[in-house]
Amino acid sequence: MIDQYRRKFAENKQLFFDQWSEFLRFKSISADSAFAVDCEACCDWLARHVSALGFSVEILRGTGKPILFAQRAGDQSKRRVLFYGHYDVQPVDPVELWQTPPFQPEVRAGRMYGRGAQDNKGQLFYVLKAIETLVKENTLECPINLLIEGEEEVGSKMIAELLPKLKNSLKADVLMVCDTGTLDPSLATITMGLRGIVSCEIKLSGPKYDLHSGVHGGLIRNPATEIARLVASLHNQDGSIAVKDYYTQVATLDEQDRVLANQAPYELERYEQTVGIKPIGGESGYSVAERRGFRPTIEINGIHGGYGGEGGKTIIPSSATVKISSRLVKGQDPAWCIDAIIEHLHQRAPQEMQFTVVSRDIGGPAISLSSKTELVAIARQVLDQVSDGKTIFIWEGASIPIVAELAHSVGAEPLLVGFGLEEDCIHAPNESFSLQQFEKGFLYSALLLRALSQ
Amino acid sequence: MIDQYRRKFAENKQLFFDQWSEFLRFKSISADSAFAVDCEACCDWLARHVSALGFSVEILRGTGKPILFAQRAGDQSKRRVLFYGHYDVQPVDPVELWQTPPFQPEVRAGRMYGRGAQDNKGQLFYVLKAIETLVKENTLECPINLLIEGEEEVGSKMIAELLPKLKNSLKADVLMVCDTGTLDPSLATITMGLRGIVSCEIKLSGPKYDLHSGVHGGLIRNPATEIARLVASLHNQDGSIAVKDYYTQVATLDEQDRVLANQAPYELERYEQTVGIKPIGGESGYSVAERRGFRPTIEINGIHGGYGGEGGKTIIPSSATVKISSRLVKGQDPAWCIDAIIEHLHQRAPQEMQFTVVSRDIGGPAISLSSKTELVAIARQVLDQVSDGKTIFIWEGASIPIVAELAHSVGAEPLLVGFGLEEDCIHAPNESFSLQQFEKGFLYSALLLRALSQ
Repeated sequence: MIDQYRRKFAENKQLFFDQWSEFLRFKSISADSAFAVDCEACCDWLARHVSALGFSVEILRGTGKPILFAQRAGDQSKRRVLFYGHYDVQPVDPVELWQTPPFQPEVRAGRMYGRGAQDNKGQLFYVLKAIETLVKENTLECPINLLIEGEEEVGSKMIAELLPKLKNSLKADVLMVCDTGTLDPSLATITMGLRGIVSCEIKLSGPKYDLHSGVHGGLIRNPATEIARLVASLHNQDGSIAVKDYYTQVATLDEQDRVLANQAPYELERYEQTVGIKPIGGESGYSVAERRGFRPTIEINGIHGGYGGEGGKTIIPSSATVKISSRLVKGQDPAWCIDAIIEHLHQRAPQEMQFTVVSRDIGGPAISLSSKTELVAIARQVLDQVSDGKTIFIWEGASIPIVAELAHSVGAEPLLVGFGLEEDCIHAPNESFSLQQFEKGFLYSALLLRALSQ
Repeated sequence: MIDQYRRKFAENKQLFFDQWSEFLRFKSISADSAFAVDCEACCDWLARHVSALGFSVEILRGTGKPILFAQRAGDQSKRRVLFYGHYDVQPVDPVELWQTPPFQPEVRAGRMYGRGAQDNKGQLFYVLKAIETLVKENTLECPINLLIEGEEEVGSKMIAELLPKLKNSLKADVLMVCDTGTLDPSLATITMGLRGIVSCEIKLSGPKYDLHSGVHGGLIRNPATEIARLVASLHNQDGSIAVKDYYTQVATLDEQDRVLANQAPYELERYEQTVGIKPIGGESGYSVAERRGFRPTIEINGIHGGYGGEGGKTIIPSSATVKISSRLVKGQDPAWCIDAIIEHLHQRAPQEMQFTVVSRDIGGPAISLSSKTELVAIARQVLDQVSDGKTIFIWEGASIPIVAELAHSVGAEPLLVGFGLEEDCIHAPNESFSLQQFEKGFLYSALLLRALSQ
């Protein structure tokens, strides 16, 4: 059956790529309120696109970016599918490092370049094209709803707010998500776990204004030095987290999970070539797969204080800020974790400075799935066709906090399959997505929905 | 005699302030090459202004910003004066904190607001107006040359390069500099020492591009975290510098200097009110005057890595940078000091990251003067008239590296007197200079040059 969809893809791919490019032109950056209008326009475009596939479409509004909710009834005896995706993208800075403008998509050497090319516009779009193909050939029998939001990159707040009201209309058996990746283009991957996430921004304020570093140097403490000391206090020399009791809630590692996770072929030399640095961070005593899938982290996402322009400026900066996020694993309570981090920093901040919690965000807890269900067996069968039998299971380091919450609310079993690769540079300059991986995603989506329609 | 100059000031002050405003409109920021043209225009304006006072004016060009050199012959039996000043100013960011635009000077509540209002355009300008006044009344008899440069805020490189060639034409007995301050408007101050300065910018590079903090968190070390650890390693818990042997060269503190320095009335409560933070930084065990005048510092002028915009961005930044400067005291060799700082950081940087010395600058060594010379006695007499007998001696924390080098090259005794106050916010947003302090500077300059003309 796969060859039939390969043919259909080949026949339509130019149109698919053109439409995908159109989708990528919207500057749907959710983190920056300057792009609120672009998010609206993007959602409207998507609504028109999905309407044309025979869905009854609704745009949900509330405190944040609009959410697309689209329904298509089917044979109620089949598994009901809820597909979740997001049309919002990460900010683009440092924009000077992009080879072509982030919102002028371009195909080069078999890859689509542009912000969101993979995460999540690209992966979302191959699913839409698979649905369109099945609709046209009249083979899509399972009931399917689409929930496509515009705030995934900033914590999915509005969807979480709407869930209590929505959950009846969202009821499903399968929560299909294509927002993950695979280790190597030759492999297909089912993601068995996602880490949770919490984050905060802390500001340390000292003098009322930037001071001359000669006149004042030695008189007062320096907010930039002090914020660096706070950051340095977060980890021990062995790379472990120094926040008190941070590991207490971490679930004991299941030996079978550990073995399965370590079977995924992490090619460390290739990693170093792609990323440009040896993967020797994190806690000592754990493998790469274990550090990524089963251990929490605290990462500095940004640290800023004082002069950053050309040349020098001999000041003691008035203040300094740090943006921190922490990935959580099975067992850890997000609210406890972010409070513990903030308390750790607050205790160590100089008393004569002002310690401000600029933001405190709870993304959500980690999720961890079972590899023994019928749905996973179906997915594995489909993926074995796409990958010539090379399906693996990974515990992912990233977070899609809303997935855990959605799955729980609507009673569905999540199925996380995606075709992203490290070289896609998601969240970074020059994001791209391989056209071949796009095709694999299309084939997987078409075959899965066919299987669920039987 | 002072009343005569008070009257002349009163008669001309509106004109003086208008011309001073004109001078402040030039965006002569030396740190940013975008303003090179503005520096040229500022120097040209100054050249025309000084020409009109009867000086023979030359603009010296070379690798950097133009230097104004103006000569006025006089009675060669009198002390020859070389006045040194600078027309360049500090950058203006964060520009959003300025109440009025930095280059649109405005008088409010008895103060002139604008970048450079005090440092050094304002203090330089009262000297020019005093010279003008004496020239008009035919009382300026001592030979006087002016050397006004455009790179003081970035290290006076070009003037240092030109010195060997210039020093014969610069020969003088007195090096007059008005680029310092006083503790309180009721006091007049002779600055007996200036700290030296060295600086560097260090970049720590990890991955080739910003990485997703979930996918990669726990695999690699984070450049922002690591640069914070480097910064944190520069000081001990007691505020002292942790760089090996950094205090070895520091000259033993002269007891008489210590007593004299501690006589200057530092009002710590007023400091806290003005600056907004308690002066409890630096090394424990030393007074404020001692920490500022006799102890070296290492200050972070800027630390930057990763996302700094609105909201969050869950990345591991590709790199992070830090701008560091160190104030030096009597005895310390600048080249040894900056190399020791860089070596300290390099040794502690993660080996898998790239450690780049973006810049390494040697400002110059500290200088320390004698309070027993005839020149200081003359200056004190003049200042006692301006301040009703309240002249004090301070060892300053700031640096004017070129002053030590100039004094040595041209064989002159430096005389450092200035009327700046902490509330002037030099190097910071909303820089300003009190019109009353400007008048005092005018009176001091006129009376000093009259005394030197006798």
